[in-house]
Amino acid sequence: MFSFTYHETHQNKARLGTLTTPHGIIETPAFIFCATKAAMKGLTVDQMRQAGSQIILSNTYHLSLQPGAELVEKMGGLQKFTGWNGPMLTDSGGFQIFSLGHGSVASEIKGKRLGNRSKTLLKITEEGARFRSYWDGRLHLLTPEDSIRIQRSLGADLILVLDECTPYHVDKSYTAKSMELSHRWAVRSLDEFDRLDNNKQKLYGIIQGGVYPDLRQQSCDFVNSQPFFGHAIGGCLGGSKDQMQEVVDMAAPHLDRDRPIHLLGIGGVLDILKGVEKGIDTFDCVHPTRIARHGGALVRPIHNPKPHREHINLRNNQYLFDDTPIEPDCPCHTCTTYSKAYLHHLLKVQEMVAHTLISIHNVQFMNRLMAAIRQSLADDTFPDEKKQWALF
Amino acid sequence: MFSFTYHETHQNKARLGTLTTPHGIIETPAFIFCATKAAMKGLTVDQMRQAGSQIILSNTYHLSLQPGAELVEKMGGLQKFTGWNGPMLTDSGGFQIFSLGHGSVASEIKGKRLGNRSKTLLKITEEGARFRSYWDGRLHLLTPEDSIRIQRSLGADLILVLDECTPYHVDKSYTAKSMELSHRWAVRSLDEFDRLDNNKQKLYGIIQGGVYPDLRQQSCDFVNSQPFFGHAIGGCLGGSKDQMQEVVDMAAPHLDRDRPIHLLGIGGVLDILKGVEKGIDTFDCVHPTRIARHGGALVRPIHNPKPHREHINLRNNQYLFDDTPIEPDCPCHTCTTYSKAYLHHLLKVQEMVAHTLISIHNVQFMNRLMAAIRQSLADDTFPDEKKQWALF
Repeated sequence: MFSFTYHETHQNKARLGTLTTPHGIIETPAFIFCATKAAMKGLTVDQMRQAGSQIILSNTYHLSLQPGAELVEKMGGLQKFTGWNGPMLTDSGGFQIFSLGHGSVASEIKGKRLGNRSKTLLKITEEGARFRSYWDGRLHLLTPEDSIRIQRSLGADLILVLDECTPYHVDKSYTAKSMELSHRWAVRSLDEFDRLDNNKQKLYGIIQGGVYPDLRQQSCDFVNSQPFFGHAIGGCLGGSKDQMQEVVDMAAPHLDRDRPIHLLGIGGVLDILKGVEKGIDTFDCVHPTRIARHGGALVRPIHNPKPHREHINLRNNQYLFDDTPIEPDCPCHTCTTYSKAYLHHLLKVQEMVAHTLISIHNVQFMNRLMAAIRQSLADDTFPDEKKQWALF
Repeated sequence: MFSFTYHETHQNKARLGTLTTPHGIIETPAFIFCATKAAMKGLTVDQMRQAGSQIILSNTYHLSLQPGAELVEKMGGLQKFTGWNGPMLTDSGGFQIFSLGHGSVASEIKGKRLGNRSKTLLKITEEGARFRSYWDGRLHLLTPEDSIRIQRSLGADLILVLDECTPYHVDKSYTAKSMELSHRWAVRSLDEFDRLDNNKQKLYGIIQGGVYPDLRQQSCDFVNSQPFFGHAIGGCLGGSKDQMQEVVDMAAPHLDRDRPIHLLGIGGVLDILKGVEKGIDTFDCVHPTRIARHGGALVRPIHNPKPHREHINLRNNQYLFDDTPIEPDCPCHTCTTYSKAYLHHLLKVQEMVAHTLISIHNVQFMNRLMAAIRQSLADDTFPDEKKQWALF
């Protein structure tokens, strides 16, 4: 039911893979879209499919609080409940507990610290993470075993071990101790996973170690030594995009190449193109739908007045009378139907369909990007192709 | 380019018509959906077409303030700007000015008066209506000629004359004077319309007269005597649904049957079934998408635990574990893909796609209703068919 096969390309460590799950096949490199609360923000599953999407992910933390994993299980699992009926991934719930506790991902990447934001993470112990629900204020304890059991009820094809996501500002000593705790949690996760394994799901291990090469190496050795189906590069990825690429360089070369490799939470176009060359197979990020909410439409450099950026902002008054689509050569419903002037109008009068229409484009953009990457790797034209998508 | 043909049925005054416009044909009886600010709330034009919609309307008042009629004209007119590229209607702008000035439609129907709500209508004179923009607070004067000119720029196929919409609480004397003013405005509208007529639009006259049979009769005689393409029953429709039907009875029988007859702002299922029998050809209302925003899904009595109501409320906890669709025999994307439990979850976590999914169902429901009406009128089975859709 599950398999991962690949062949090498001439482009450094980039590879073309096929990830088979009970709910369908994912051609890699691929992008995984975030349906956080079991729904894509503003998009139906039909629209997701029409935009060429292969796989979506949902968040264990959110779903375990509302509607609860039991309900999803009773409804036949996430794939049926959401109507997606295709490959899915769930995270362990850890990321949300820790990012809500320590600060957001964006503030991680930007090296900021948590200010007045209320902390929901109360305590991390050997047992697990104790936190306060954002949903109803109640106290919860999430153990590695709980996370596996919840993810089993949710029923995604690919699931993740619970780990501690350390914030950017902690030192090497904390990072090392945290990594060791996450490794012990990973072993407990594997035990719990094996105890009830029904071959309907596969477990990914997560590489920790922050921004420290020797810790990343240790963590790679650890995950390689354990019977994970796949590996995800996680933990603190640094305080800048450059440092994030350095962290990927510390991890990716040491990972077992027979297992699919995921990079957690990264969705920039340039970041993806660089990641593919380092051997990353899958990426995920809320970016494509999140920027859509604020009027951000992904475009290639040729269509961007500021080609060093990866999107245009349709709220900008320069689009008031612009009767051309976001990208004239894009085949999505939005680009074949609506002008930038119309989308600008919708944003201005706060029509929620603006988010839907820009998200349709952004999702299809990401799928077109990944398809172009795969095709160019197959054709050995990646160095030329990548220049169409981002400024290097 | 324009025509209206019909044939009588055996069902009282009900008739089957074909309304031809430059942007397409509308089989009547038909429902016109409200794309107030040049967009359906939460739906793409693809979704509108897939749900079987024939015609949508936009509001001159909103569009003239933002983005402005000039911009829409520059962008090729409403049909192109919105991507709909099908038949469209615009109202005159009067309804919004007066409803925002006097109180909302809902409070009209329910017989309420305007309380603390700020009045935007400042003065009605022979010249036109002076009001304050809800958009930027600026003062505006809308004359009958302005309304025609704006609607010409917007470019909808079917347009309406400016009229004063009297509130429910005014007396007969005010209603009579208001009707006479609206008639004089209607003549000015026709003059302005004829002055620049390019045969790309057709003008509807509006029947006034409030809840007074003799005034309604007078107003019908007036519109019949003028070269309107179609007629819309407007003005105050009373303080209850029963009174609204009485008002329709005061007007519909007196109208020239060679012209299409529209009933303004009415979208209840029972109201439509009764209206069709009285000879109404088209209806419009924000109801299907407005109730969707609050979790209301239109269902036939057989699928409703409270069959005297026309919708169910998916926010209700009784749907927490309900893995059946809104209507098991509905072919829409929502009913073929998602359960009530899932929609309940989306509403609970405030995912905006809930509105989209319920709207898809509600729009298709209204189109199925109208198609069933047309088919049963053709087959002479209307008395049986109508019982499938509402409790009488």
